[in-house]
Amino acid sequence: MPFPPINIDLLVSAGHIVPIEPAGVVLENHALAVDQGRILALLPVNEARARYAPRKTLDLPGHALMPGLINMHTHSAMSLLRGIADDLPLMDWLQGHIWPAEGANMSYQFCHDGVRLAMAEMIRGGQTCFNDMYFFPDATAAAVEAAGMRAAVGLIVIDFPSAWAQPGEYIHKGLALHDSLRGKPLLKTTFAPHAPYTVNDEALRQVRQYATELQIPINMHIHETAFEVEQAVAQTGKRPLQRLKELDLLGPDLIAVHMTQLTDEEIEEVAHYGVHVAHCPESNMKLASGFCPVHRLMHAGANVCVGTDGAASNNDLDLFGELRSASLLAKVVSGDARALPAAKALEMATLAGAKALGWDESIGSLLPGKAADFIAVDLAALNTQPVYHVISQLAYALNSRQVDYVWVAGKPLLIEGQLQTLVEDELRAKASEWRNKITNK
Amino acid sequence: MPFPPINIDLLVSAGHIVPIEPAGVVLENHALAVDQGRILALLPVNEARARYAPRKTLDLPGHALMPGLINMHTHSAMSLLRGIADDLPLMDWLQGHIWPAEGANMSYQFCHDGVRLAMAEMIRGGQTCFNDMYFFPDATAAAVEAAGMRAAVGLIVIDFPSAWAQPGEYIHKGLALHDSLRGKPLLKTTFAPHAPYTVNDEALRQVRQYATELQIPINMHIHETAFEVEQAVAQTGKRPLQRLKELDLLGPDLIAVHMTQLTDEEIEEVAHYGVHVAHCPESNMKLASGFCPVHRLMHAGANVCVGTDGAASNNDLDLFGELRSASLLAKVVSGDARALPAAKALEMATLAGAKALGWDESIGSLLPGKAADFIAVDLAALNTQPVYHVISQLAYALNSRQVDYVWVAGKPLLIEGQLQTLVEDELRAKASEWRNKITNK
Repeated sequence: MPFPPINIDLLVSAGHIVPIEPAGVVLENHALAVDQGRILALLPVNEARARYAPRKTLDLPGHALMPGLINMHTHSAMSLLRGIADDLPLMDWLQGHIWPAEGANMSYQFCHDGVRLAMAEMIRGGQTCFNDMYFFPDATAAAVEAAGMRAAVGLIVIDFPSAWAQPGEYIHKGLALHDSLRGKPLLKTTFAPHAPYTVNDEALRQVRQYATELQIPINMHIHETAFEVEQAVAQTGKRPLQRLKELDLLGPDLIAVHMTQLTDEEIEEVAHYGVHVAHCPESNMKLASGFCPVHRLMHAGANVCVGTDGAASNNDLDLFGELRSASLLAKVVSGDARALPAAKALEMATLAGAKALGWDESIGSLLPGKAADFIAVDLAALNTQPVYHVISQLAYALNSRQVDYVWVAGKPLLIEGQLQTLVEDELRAKASEWRNKITNK
Repeated sequence: MPFPPINIDLLVSAGHIVPIEPAGVVLENHALAVDQGRILALLPVNEARARYAPRKTLDLPGHALMPGLINMHTHSAMSLLRGIADDLPLMDWLQGHIWPAEGANMSYQFCHDGVRLAMAEMIRGGQTCFNDMYFFPDATAAAVEAAGMRAAVGLIVIDFPSAWAQPGEYIHKGLALHDSLRGKPLLKTTFAPHAPYTVNDEALRQVRQYATELQIPINMHIHETAFEVEQAVAQTGKRPLQRLKELDLLGPDLIAVHMTQLTDEEIEEVAHYGVHVAHCPESNMKLASGFCPVHRLMHAGANVCVGTDGAASNNDLDLFGELRSASLLAKVVSGDARALPAAKALEMATLAGAKALGWDESIGSLLPGKAADFIAVDLAALNTQPVYHVISQLAYALNSRQVDYVWVAGKPLLIEGQLQTLVEDELRAKASEWRNKITNK
């Protein structure tokens, strides 16, 4: 006698499923079974229909399912400063435009509105999780929770005063937020000391200690520009990475963002210590910061993930575009068209990010038992036709608007291209309000 | 007594108009008046409403109007080979995958279907004109004419036999097509000798002679890879550009495609001779071909336009994405974030292309008297909010799916995101048919 069908929350069948684990696999005519926010199974559609009695069923024969993308570096609230100043090098851009605009407008509300605008774009483009670094991380956490997205909220540490905290206050304000987020499964924190050139040794020692005791990852801009490295060498005789090593910061709990300036020895060290690198190719290109040697880092064994950086320096938060840029740039910089192939680029934007956040038991691939953070992408659009190889279309030809469905922990955040937990018109009105305020209109 | 209103075909008012000429200008709350396929005037909305009695009116307060984009290098029929082989260097990709797939399937029908698939994507992404190079240019011309798009059809010349022509036949088959297209305002031709390494001197001499006599531009892959240059030097003692100079091919009627390998002296020569450079950044990156020194070419005074290359090596035909890549890449390669700023990137994808084709009297900007080839882009999408600078949003933040309307010579090819002269379902079915045939499914 056959078993009676098992009640589950959701069954999504699709023309193709790219689970990311095992690497390079594409399943045809399979279904993803979801219950209580988790992936129960991936199995052929016919088997799935016999085995399960889903409360909700979705058939997407022209779509591909894959894990939600993980944006491993952004300052999401800066979406409100998108395009305020372009075509400038990092320091002119920061000191002449971004810091003044931030200084005059920074508030809980600015951050809350900015994060919501950013999440709308990120969800629309297939991202289910982001790793943030900005002021008012409490605003970020509240906005993320309300939208049902997943995030690692950076507890910013910097030597300068801001509307969020005074120097010396950052770590404890951050820890208070960390405590308040315990038990919230979609949120975690990272320590986010801004950069070697903006955080003193004593603060970094404190970060090291708390990070170890509380098992909080550390997330820091490192070696973003040649200028940063040269200045440190001129002032201290040491490259920033050397200083961080002496402060015992190099380890598998460090997410090193940018890393465009690396010697061969430093590449080996990054791999040796298990440091994760968050590569932001478009921001590095736009600010003329340099090339992160992704292919050499990967060859050395380092885990490299990918992020958009903030919308003020990109100027979009499109991680499908970013993983494509990462792949194309790795090829031309290494002089080898085989570098960072399509499947690896997709892994970089999913599983590699999960690993860097210490969250790979929960997200980053469609393994049974992991959270049901996944997306459905329409391959029937003419710009992804014909389909010879699904992975190639996802990495190289897809327009992020082809993302039609997004689920986080089994809950739909996007259905047929429509946001479910954020209201577009409201975000548009808020964006205009902030622009008018910032430009004194 | 006021003049009675003037009857015109179309009046489109928009929140913003970016005419490209004059450079950097953004008009607020202006309208574009169109009659008999041409731009009559750009003027403030209120004045326009008083002056004109349009047969059709469109009000787009949340949109920006700009000239249609001109894709200055593509092999449009190759859209049917999109993603068939990736992550390979140029010569392996060509010899191991593309040439065999082409060889077994090349026909008038393959090209006709491929060009139509490509045009659907190009129109959807805001392109009104493309500069093509491929076999069966007669199929290309027929497909373009039927779709109402504008194109420069390349009369391919190559030393190898193909289903289109035998060696020695190419030029005269091309000239016969050229003759048949006289009097068609949306079509022109270029001579398209494939590359220095695939076309002999005698054929190039003939091309030079006919090009001059008939005033047909010449369009050729040149210095795409270091290998091509090294091989020519080894075999002949000359760099390809030197050979082309001796064959009298360097001049303002030459569109040199790719040009990733250039000495300082060659850059000066390109500018001196008025050679136009068609830059294909994403293809050059994906095939690891190298970096075209765009900023140095521009600094020397050369006209640089931009193309997607074929979908087999990109793998999309998204020129908004391409102009953005061109700008970002120019910044990081030159080490100067000021290089190729937003307004210049937009000009590169419009007016610079028109100049290269000798078509700048007709297209490339929204000057009165030019053809009404223009597009409307929705800036209200959240990924282009808030709007501080329209030009920044168009160059750096726009998703090409935000193109809602496309007109060529005043005729709508896209309305509210829907193609008007091509049928999506039919193209999708054709794409599947060809994939099945090519993969023997």
